[in-house]
Amino acid sequence: MIERTKIGELKEKVEQEVTLAGWVDIRRDHGKLIFIDLRDVSGKVQMVVLPNHEKAQKMAQEIRPEWVIKIKGLVNKRPEKMIKIDQLNGNLEIEVKEIEILSEAKELPFDKDSELNLDTYLDYLPLTLRTDKAKAIFKVQANIIRAFREFFNQENFTEIQAPKLIGDDAEGGANSFDIEYFGHTAHLAQSPQFYKQIMVGIFEKVFTTGNVYRAEKHSTTRHINEYTSMDAEIGFIVDHTDVMMIENSLLKYIMDALKKNCQKEFEMLGAEIPNVPESIPVLKLRTAQEIIKKETGEDSTNEPDLEPQHERWLCKYAKKEHSSDFIFITHFPTSKRPMYTYEDENDLGYTKSFDLLFRGIEVTTGGQRIHNYDKLLAAIKTKGLNPEKFTYYLQTFKYGMPPHGGFALGLERLTARLLGLENVKEATLFPRDLNRIDSLLSK
Amino acid sequence: MIERTKIGELKEKVEQEVTLAGWVDIRRDHGKLIFIDLRDVSGKVQMVVLPNHEKAQKMAQEIRPEWVIKIKGLVNKRPEKMIKIDQLNGNLEIEVKEIEILSEAKELPFDKDSELNLDTYLDYLPLTLRTDKAKAIFKVQANIIRAFREFFNQENFTEIQAPKLIGDDAEGGANSFDIEYFGHTAHLAQSPQFYKQIMVGIFEKVFTTGNVYRAEKHSTTRHINEYTSMDAEIGFIVDHTDVMMIENSLLKYIMDALKKNCQKEFEMLGAEIPNVPESIPVLKLRTAQEIIKKETGEDSTNEPDLEPQHERWLCKYAKKEHSSDFIFITHFPTSKRPMYTYEDENDLGYTKSFDLLFRGIEVTTGGQRIHNYDKLLAAIKTKGLNPEKFTYYLQTFKYGMPPHGGFALGLERLTARLLGLENVKEATLFPRDLNRIDSLLSK
Repeated sequence: MIERTKIGELKEKVEQEVTLAGWVDIRRDHGKLIFIDLRDVSGKVQMVVLPNHEKAQKMAQEIRPEWVIKIKGLVNKRPEKMIKIDQLNGNLEIEVKEIEILSEAKELPFDKDSELNLDTYLDYLPLTLRTDKAKAIFKVQANIIRAFREFFNQENFTEIQAPKLIGDDAEGGANSFDIEYFGHTAHLAQSPQFYKQIMVGIFEKVFTTGNVYRAEKHSTTRHINEYTSMDAEIGFIVDHTDVMMIENSLLKYIMDALKKNCQKEFEMLGAEIPNVPESIPVLKLRTAQEIIKKETGEDSTNEPDLEPQHERWLCKYAKKEHSSDFIFITHFPTSKRPMYTYEDENDLGYTKSFDLLFRGIEVTTGGQRIHNYDKLLAAIKTKGLNPEKFTYYLQTFKYGMPPHGGFALGLERLTARLLGLENVKEATLFPRDLNRIDSLLSK
Repeated sequence: MIERTKIGELKEKVEQEVTLAGWVDIRRDHGKLIFIDLRDVSGKVQMVVLPNHEKAQKMAQEIRPEWVIKIKGLVNKRPEKMIKIDQLNGNLEIEVKEIEILSEAKELPFDKDSELNLDTYLDYLPLTLRTDKAKAIFKVQANIIRAFREFFNQENFTEIQAPKLIGDDAEGGANSFDIEYFGHTAHLAQSPQFYKQIMVGIFEKVFTTGNVYRAEKHSTTRHINEYTSMDAEIGFIVDHTDVMMIENSLLKYIMDALKKNCQKEFEMLGAEIPNVPESIPVLKLRTAQEIIKKETGEDSTNEPDLEPQHERWLCKYAKKEHSSDFIFITHFPTSKRPMYTYEDENDLGYTKSFDLLFRGIEVTTGGQRIHNYDKLLAAIKTKGLNPEKFTYYLQTFKYGMPPHGGFALGLERLTARLLGLENVKEATLFPRDLNRIDSLLSK
C-alpha cells in the first residue's frame, strides 16, 4: 500500500513531516501562495505551497480539482486568528514540500458541491457521489445493513443466500421482470419470501440481504425498481406479535449502532437518530381508521389499506400520543395480503400481519404465515392462483413446518427516512427507475 | 416464541421436566414402546413414549417422519449399556408425557437421508436440505460470508450495494442475460466490477456481496448460472501484490473463523480446514508453464491461460513444494484479461493480474486496474469495444482515480472446495443451470 498518514489522523502529527495522498478538493491560486484542500476518505486538510519549494510550486500551478496527488509536507499549527474550531484540522495547515501526481482529472462539468437537480446528480454519480453529503448517506447505509446482520448473528439466526432468478412469477402479479433464460422465460424475484420460508424448515431462524426487483411503472419519490431487501424469517413463533417484538429489538439495535458509529454523519445531514420505544405502539387497521375518522373527519373505514396521507397522519399521532417515531398497524384484510398470510382465528377475514410505519411511510411488511399444507393450498385457490405453479414451494409445507413468520425492511427507504431525504433515489447508490439505468434510457 | 428447551442444551436438564419442539426425524414402533428421534436446529434426541401415558401413546401411533410436534417430558439418563458416547444426547432419553401436534406431514417420497442422485436431490430441496449433511454445508457457507464481511469491516472497508440490473452489457461478451425493461433491453450483471471501482473514488476501500449472473451454457460440476460473488476493491495500492496480500490475510481470517465455529461440521463432512501460509506461493503464468513442461512433459507454454488439469497439477505442486493448499498465478497476457486490467510496465504484454488456485481449481480472479483515463480509453479500443458504451463508468477515471485493484471470490465454489464436494451445486442452496430453476425446465 502507498505509505501515508490518513488526513483524519493529522492531529497526532503536529510539527512532523508526513506523506498524504488523496483528491484535490479545492485549489486557490494566490499568486505566490497556492492553497490546496486535500481530501481522503477520513477528511480534508488545507495545504499551502510556498514559493521556496520551486518544483512543488510549478506542479501546483498545473493541478486542478479531483486530481489525485501524493505529497510530502510539514504539519504546521495555524496562527491563532486563522484557526477554525469547528473544522477537522481547522488548527493545522500542511506546508507542501514535494508533490507527486498519481492521476490527472479532466475539467469538471460543474463544482461537485453545487446544488444540482436530481437528473444532473444522477447523470454524474461517479463524480457527485464524492461529496461529503453522499459519503455520509452511504456510510450510514453501510452501518444499517451491518447492524442488521450483526443483530441476527448474535440471535443465532443463520444467513442464507436466496436466488433472485426465479422460474415462475410465483408471488403473482404483473410486477416481475422477464428474463430470456435459454429459450425459457424466467423472472427476477420480488422478494426472497418463499426461500426464506423453505429455509425455516432447515435452520428455524434465518436472515438474508440482497437485491429484489419490482417492475412497477412508478416514478415517485418512494419507489425504485431494484432495491436491497433485508429479510428475516422465524420458526416456532406463537403468533405475529413475536415477529413484531423481534423487529422492535432489531430497530433498537440498529439505532444504537448508528448512535455509536454515525453521530457525525447525522449531525452533518441535520437528521436525528430516533429513539426506539421498548414497545412500539400497535393499532389494528380498523382501530386506526376509527381514530382517523374521529380526529380528522376523514372516513376511510371501508378501505382495505392505508392511503399515504393516513400513514403520515398515524405517524404524527404516534409521535404525539406515544413519543414514538414508529407505529405498527396490524390485521389487514385477507383480501389485501398475499396468499401465505395467516388469518386470525379470532378475527376472521383479517390477518396476523403488520406494517411498520416510520416517519410517515411504511418501511416493513411482515406477519405470521400459514404453515398448514391444506390451508395454504386452499388459500392459493381462493386467491385464484394455480397451485401447480407452487409445487416446489408447497413441498415445504407438505413435509412439516412449524408456526413461523417474518418481515422485510427496505434498506434504501429506511436510510432515506432516517436521514430525512425527500427522494429514496438519494439513498440508493445507483437507482434504477422507469427512465434510467445509470444513464437515461433513450426512447 | 414457543417456550422450549433446545435439544442441544438437554445435558443441562437431566432429571428435569422439559418442553421440546421440532421435527420427527425417525419413529420406531416397538408395540408397547414407541421411539421417536426428535430434531431441532441444535441437534437430535431419542424419546420414548411408554404405555402408561395413554393419550401420548395414541398420538405417537399416528405420528410420522417430518411432523412437527411439541412435547412435555422427563430427561432420563440412559442405562449404562445403552449409552452412545459419540452422539449428542447419547446418554439421555426423553420420557414423553404429553404430545402436541404443531403440523402434520404427508408421506415422504423417500427417506430423506438415503443416497439420492443429484436430480432427485434438487427436485426435493425443501425436504432434502433437512439432512445433517446439507445443514452442515450451509452453516459453513454462512460462516464464510460472515467472516468475509467481518474482516473488511475491521479493516475499515465500506460495504456498498451494487446494482445487478445493468443497462449495457458493459463487460462485453455474450454471457449476460437479457431482461425486458420497460420497452428496453437491460442485462443482469456478471460482476459488480464497475461499481466497486466507482466507489473506490468515494470510500477508497470497499467490499460487496451479492448475486451475479453468467448466461453460460455450461453443464459442468463447477459452473452455475447465478452465484454469490464476494468482492473487494482497494485504492492507493502500489501494485497487484498489495491486493494479493490482503486476500492472503482475508483467507487466514476466514479459516480461523471456521476453525472456531465449524470444526464439528468439517469433521462430519470428512473435510479439513486448510492452513493458510503467511505468504501464499506465487508463480508467473509462464514460470508455472515451464515447471509443468519440465515435470510432466506437457507443453502449454504457448497457451494464454491454464487448462483445468494444469490448475490441478499446480495445486499438487504447491502442496508438495510449499505445504500450501493455495497458489497465486500472476501475469496473464493482456489478450486474456478484461480491458481494465493493468499492464505490467516491466513485462509488456502481461498484466498485473492474478488467479488464486485452491485444491485444484481457480477460486479468485483479481489484479490491479488501469486508473488513467486515457490509457483506459485506449485499452477499450484495443479490445475492439465501443467507448460510448462505457461513458458512465469512464467518468470515474475522467475525474481522477488513485491506483487501485481488487478481487472476487465465488462463495459457492469456495464452499465446495473447502468441503470436498464434487459438484458446486451441492454448495448452492437453490442452484440454477441450463436445465433447472428449482424444477427442471420443460422444453
